[in-house]
Amino acid sequence: MWYEGRTLDHIVISHRIRLARNLVDYKFPVKMNQQEAYEVIRHLKVELAQLIGYDFDFIELEAISDIEKQKLVETHLISPLLSQIHLPTMVICNKERDISIMINEEDHIRVQCMQGGQSIQKTWETASKLDDDIGKVLEYAFHKEYGHMTSCITNVGTGLRASFMVHLPMLSKTGHISKIFESLQKLGIQIRGMYGEGTKVLGNIYQISNQLTLGRSETDLIAIVKNVTQNLVEKEEYIRTHLSETTKRGLINKLYRSYGILRYARELSVEEAMELLSDVKLGFEMGIYDFKKPSHNLYEMMLMCQEGVVLSGSQSIKENIPLNILRAEHIRKHLEI
Amino acid sequence: MWYEGRTLDHIVISHRIRLARNLVDYKFPVKMNQQEAYEVIRHLKVELAQLIGYDFDFIELEAISDIEKQKLVETHLISPLLSQIHLPTMVICNKERDISIMINEEDHIRVQCMQGGQSIQKTWETASKLDDDIGKVLEYAFHKEYGHMTSCITNVGTGLRASFMVHLPMLSKTGHISKIFESLQKLGIQIRGMYGEGTKVLGNIYQISNQLTLGRSETDLIAIVKNVTQNLVEKEEYIRTHLSETTKRGLINKLYRSYGILRYARELSVEEAMELLSDVKLGFEMGIYDFKKPSHNLYEMMLMCQEGVVLSGSQSIKENIPLNILRAEHIRKHLEI
Repeated sequence: MWYEGRTLDHIVISHRIRLARNLVDYKFPVKMNQQEAYEVIRHLKVELAQLIGYDFDFIELEAISDIEKQKLVETHLISPLLSQIHLPTMVICNKERDISIMINEEDHIRVQCMQGGQSIQKTWETASKLDDDIGKVLEYAFHKEYGHMTSCITNVGTGLRASFMVHLPMLSKTGHISKIFESLQKLGIQIRGMYGEGTKVLGNIYQISNQLTLGRSETDLIAIVKNVTQNLVEKEEYIRTHLSETTKRGLINKLYRSYGILRYARELSVEEAMELLSDVKLGFEMGIYDFKKPSHNLYEMMLMCQEGVVLSGSQSIKENIPLNILRAEHIRKHLEI
Repeated sequence: MWYEGRTLDHIVISHRIRLARNLVDYKFPVKMNQQEAYEVIRHLKVELAQLIGYDFDFIELEAISDIEKQKLVETHLISPLLSQIHLPTMVICNKERDISIMINEEDHIRVQCMQGGQSIQKTWETASKLDDDIGKVLEYAFHKEYGHMTSCITNVGTGLRASFMVHLPMLSKTGHISKIFESLQKLGIQIRGMYGEGTKVLGNIYQISNQLTLGRSETDLIAIVKNVTQNLVEKEEYIRTHLSETTKRGLINKLYRSYGILRYARELSVEEAMELLSDVKLGFEMGIYDFKKPSHNLYEMMLMCQEGVVLSGSQSIKENIPLNILRAEHIRKHLEI
């Protein structure tokens, strides 16, 4: 996985480029029946397996368990929607799992490229090249005037969504965030939870992305989202470095306690675990603790406490151990240095 | 101190015998003026210094700081009342600090003998012998029919209060305690906080003692309090060993978290610290933790988090560090194995 064993402990955890594409010879997924959906999958399997320079795994979602599906959602390889669709669907991933192509989600093809940190330019180049390469072997539904045709009107045009996943604990704790987000929404910037559309905000992690994709070039869209994110980072940093003596003292106490609870709790819900890990991430970034970071990065640990990831450990279901106990165990083990 | 470096981690933390005595040649303390109070102190200093077989320290309360007084209260060598009286007062202690004699509290003389654990018989013998020894050199105010004369009517007779300090976390957590205490009060048993009359219950520690001292022999009074205490111990133990699976799971989680907070918190109020230490004491006694006990016993640590004890450390006041920060530091240091 792209996030494993890496230093990701910054405000910008990761970023992602997503391109929505459809094939000209098939109905949009919302209008397809079983048979037609199968045909799309078969067709894409054959064509994309031949792309030179890629080494893809083809995972048909019918063939895997619900827990495995959930794990794919939690590690951002597929959207929650893809895991729920009743038609045949597929995800195509490279070995590093920083490229994933969802088949038969809202659109026939959704190319996703993701990376840790802030440098989105290289990721955009990867996505763009992959898009070109696919475009050479398949014919996209493309309108001269409007651009790429998509199921949902908001994706028509470039079909691009650029997003940054940011950790904003101080903006959240101080309550500044709601006002900021209100004004960003007016500017066409979408703020969502860690797992996109309609998902809860967990651990003060937000996805910042463009709302519309039409009427602007890809590089413009990316630049807008990047600037907004950079601005949020500066605001978050400003608060962190301008705390009053009293607030800082309270924060230190709070962040140490959060670490203590994570280190010793025997049961943790996902909400609490995410909140505590958010505190611990903040504590390390602010240099508050007098002990060393764990070898796993904190974002990795946040993913580790998601239900599917926790349950996909082999013994868990057989032994009928409650999820909250398993999660706490998981975290304790990985918090060690 | 009697409680230092000893294994006291049981439900009955300690017990105490207290004898109220007055001198026949002086007015009761409530009626004394400064001069008369001084005379009592001078007189007792001379007489008790000559008692053979005792090695006493004589501490006049006027001569020590408020923090030192508070520390004497917190370590149970004097009552909160003695630290507040405006007349000259004194406490006489042996080196082990398991004998303390308060002078000019409610009565001229209050002999106190205390020990860890449950075996009150030996402590009673010590107190009784000391009482006899004092009675040989001083004349007590004694009435043939009523017995020892005291300021407060409840102490007339034997002047004896036998008390046990018990830690009843499960009876408290389950709420059983209020009903039990109600019925005990009807039987003439008094239940009070850790520092006696009018003090708050901290850390689920209660003082169980006889209300009246008249009309019964000393051994009868002691036997009654002892039986009541034994009964409470059995009730507490019953709950600890008859928890449902679910309750036990929740308890384990709670007790581990309490340990984690104590181990990492940077600020702790006395109430919270006592509550957490109570949890940790329970956790060790129930064999819940997968790590070793700290070398200090938990009761010792409870005393360590009291204000006077915390502040009597030298650097604390000079450096103007908030009490809650000092307390947390104190506890962290002593929680280490």
